Amino acid sequence: MTGNATDTILLAVTGWDPDVWVSEFAKAAPKRKLVLNSTDKDKIRYALVWKQRQGSLAGLPNLDVIFSLGAGVDHIFHDQQIPDVPIVRIVSPDLTMRMSEYVVWQVLDHHRLGMRYRQQQGQRVWHEDRRQPAAHEVNVGILGLGVLGRDAAQKLRALGFRVSGWSRRLQTMEGITTYYGKDGLKDFLKDVDIVVCLLPLTPDTKSILSMSMFAQMKQHGPLGAPTLINAGRGGLQNEPDILAALDRGMLSAVTLDVFNREPLPKDSPLWTHPQVTITPHAAASSSPQALVPEIVAQIESFERGEPLKNIVDRAAQY
Amino acid sequence: MTGNATDTILLAVTGWDPDVWVSEFAKAAPKRKLVLNSTDKDKIRYALVWKQRQGSLAGLPNLDVIFSLGAGVDHIFHDQQIPDVPIVRIVSPDLTMRMSEYVVWQVLDHHRLGMRYRQQQGQRVWHEDRRQPAAHEVNVGILGLGVLGRDAAQKLRALGFRVSGWSRRLQTMEGITTYYGKDGLKDFLKDVDIVVCLLPLTPDTKSILSMSMFAQMKQHGPLGAPTLINAGRGGLQNEPDILAALDRGMLSAVTLDVFNREPLPKDSPLWTHPQVTITPHAAASSSPQALVPEIVAQIESFERGEPLKNIVDRAAQY
Repeated sequence: MTGNATDTILLAVTGWDPDVWVSEFAKAAPKRKLVLNSTDKDKIRYALVWKQRQGSLAGLPNLDVIFSLGAGVDHIFHDQQIPDVPIVRIVSPDLTMRMSEYVVWQVLDHHRLGMRYRQQQGQRVWHEDRRQPAAHEVNVGILGLGVLGRDAAQKLRALGFRVSGWSRRLQTMEGITTYYGKDGLKDFLKDVDIVVCLLPLTPDTKSILSMSMFAQMKQHGPLGAPTLINAGRGGLQNEPDILAALDRGMLSAVTLDVFNREPLPKDSPLWTHPQVTITPHAAASSSPQALVPEIVAQIESFERGEPLKNIVDRAAQY
Repeated sequence: MTGNATDTILLAVTGWDPDVWVSEFAKAAPKRKLVLNSTDKDKIRYALVWKQRQGSLAGLPNLDVIFSLGAGVDHIFHDQQIPDVPIVRIVSPDLTMRMSEYVVWQVLDHHRLGMRYRQQQGQRVWHEDRRQPAAHEVNVGILGLGVLGRDAAQKLRALGFRVSGWSRRLQTMEGITTYYGKDGLKDFLKDVDIVVCLLPLTPDTKSILSMSMFAQMKQHGPLGAPTLINAGRGGLQNEPDILAALDRGMLSAVTLDVFNREPLPKDSPLWTHPQVTITPHAAASSSPQALVPEIVAQIESFERGEPLKNIVDRAAQY
C-alpha cells in the first residue's frame, strides 16, 4: 500500500485524443510517468481508462487501481480480461455540474415549449400558448439516483418542479418522492410527465427505455403525453421503440444525448424527427483540466494508506 | 379606509380576453361585483388594468387603488388621465417563478450551444465542441435587480454561473457582484458574457439596449462575443442596433421575448436571423388562476386597514 511517486500510470483510452490528458498530468503531477501502452508491465501501478482496448489491462502484475475517466463504467466491462483490482469511478463536481446543467436545460426546453416556439419562429408565427403549466404542475421523474441524479433532482426542485426518482435500491431525498426496485418502477411511471434517464448501463438496465416502459407511463399530463430525456447511455434505449412511441403519441417529445451507435449514423430517422432533439454525447464531457487534479489527489490519498472512494460494485457493474 | 365587500371592481384591459379573469374573480370573491366598463362611476373602488384605454380610469370619484395585472407598469403610464391614487404592481411568486424559468432556460440554451447543436442536427452532423466552458467561467449579468432580477440571479448562481447585477440604486446580494447608477453600468458591461435584461421601461431606460451599450461590452469571453436576452419590454431595445451588432460580431446571439411592436411584424428581419431566438412575449404570463386570489387577498388586507404593498413610484414610473 505504501506509495512511490515514481510509479507508472497507464493511460488506456480509445476514441479520445490523449494529448490533453498527458499535458494536464504533466502539470498536476510532473514527477509521475504516464505511458500510453504497457511495454514496461512491471512498473504500472495505476490505469486510467476510457473504452480501453480488449486485454490492454491484462498481465500487469503490480496494478493496484483502475480509474474510469467517465461517470459511467460500462465502457470498462466489455473487456473480458480486467484484472481483479478495485475500479474507481469519477465523481467530480465538474461533471456533476455539467450534467445538471444539461438536464435542467432540456427539461426547461420541453416545459417552456421550445420546439413549438422555434417552429413558429421558422414560420413567422406569433402565437403564445396560454395553457402554459406552472412548474409545480409538472412532475419530473429521474431514473437513477446516483450522484448525478440526486444533484439534478435538487436543482429541478429549486426551480419549482415536482420531482420524483427511481433507483434500484431505496434512496430517500427531502422534498422528492422516491421509488425503488421493479415494483416501484410501475408506480414511478404512473405519475411522471418528463422522464430523465441517468441510469448506469448494466445487464439489468439494457434497453430499459422501451415500449413496455412507455406503455406504463401516464398519458395525459399537463404537457400531453410524457417526454423522455436520455443522458445516460445509448444502450439503455430501444431506438425503434422510441420512434414508434412518438408516432403513436405515447411520447410527446424526446431528447437524446446518447445512442445505440455513436456517432449516430447519417441514415438514422432520429435526426429528422420533428419531436426529437439530438446532442452529440455532449451532456457532461470530462474536462481533463478539472478531472486530472482530482485523480491525482485520489492517487495521493491512496498512497497515504487512505481507503479508495467511489469503488464500483463489480457484481452490479456500476 | 373601512371596506365594503360589495364595492365594485373595474377590469380595464385591452388585448386580453377578460372572460377568464371574470370567472376567476367569481370563484375567488363571489360577493364582489366586477364590471368591464365604468358606467356606474360612483361605485368603482378598485381598478385592475392592463393597457387600459386612454381615459378609462378618469372621473371615478371613489377609486382607491389601481392594480396592474402585469409585472411591469409602463402599460399604465401611456394614459395621461390616471387618477392620483396608489398604483400597485403585481409581485407574485407565480410570475417570478415563470420569469426565472425563462431566464435560466435561455441562459442555458446559449451556454450549452443549443443553436449550434440544432443546426448540426438539421444537417445530420455529429460534432461536439470540446471547448465547452464550465458555468463558473461564464458571467451572467442581470440588468434590473427587482424581485424578478434577484430571483433569476439566485437561480443562476445555484447552477454555478458567476452572476453580476446592475440596478439604478445600490442593491447588495450575497455571492453576486452588484453595480449601480450610470457609472456602475460601464463596469458591469466590461465583465459580462450573457446579459439578461429585466429592467422596467421608463423614460430613463427607453432604448437602453443600443449600440452605445453593446460597444462597452467585453468582446472576448468564453462564449465569444456577448449574448443578449431581453425579457423586459420591447421599448428597452433598439432593434436595428441589435441586428447591426449581430452582423458586426459585437453580439454573438440574442433571445428576445419582447419587441418594439407586438405581435412582431411579419416583415421583421429578426424572425429569420440565424442568431436570434424569438418567443412571443411568453416569458412570464400572468396566470389568472394564480393572480386573482393574490389580488383579492391584497384588497381584503387593504380593507382591514393594512398598508398597500408594492406601490409604484410615480416619479420613477416603476
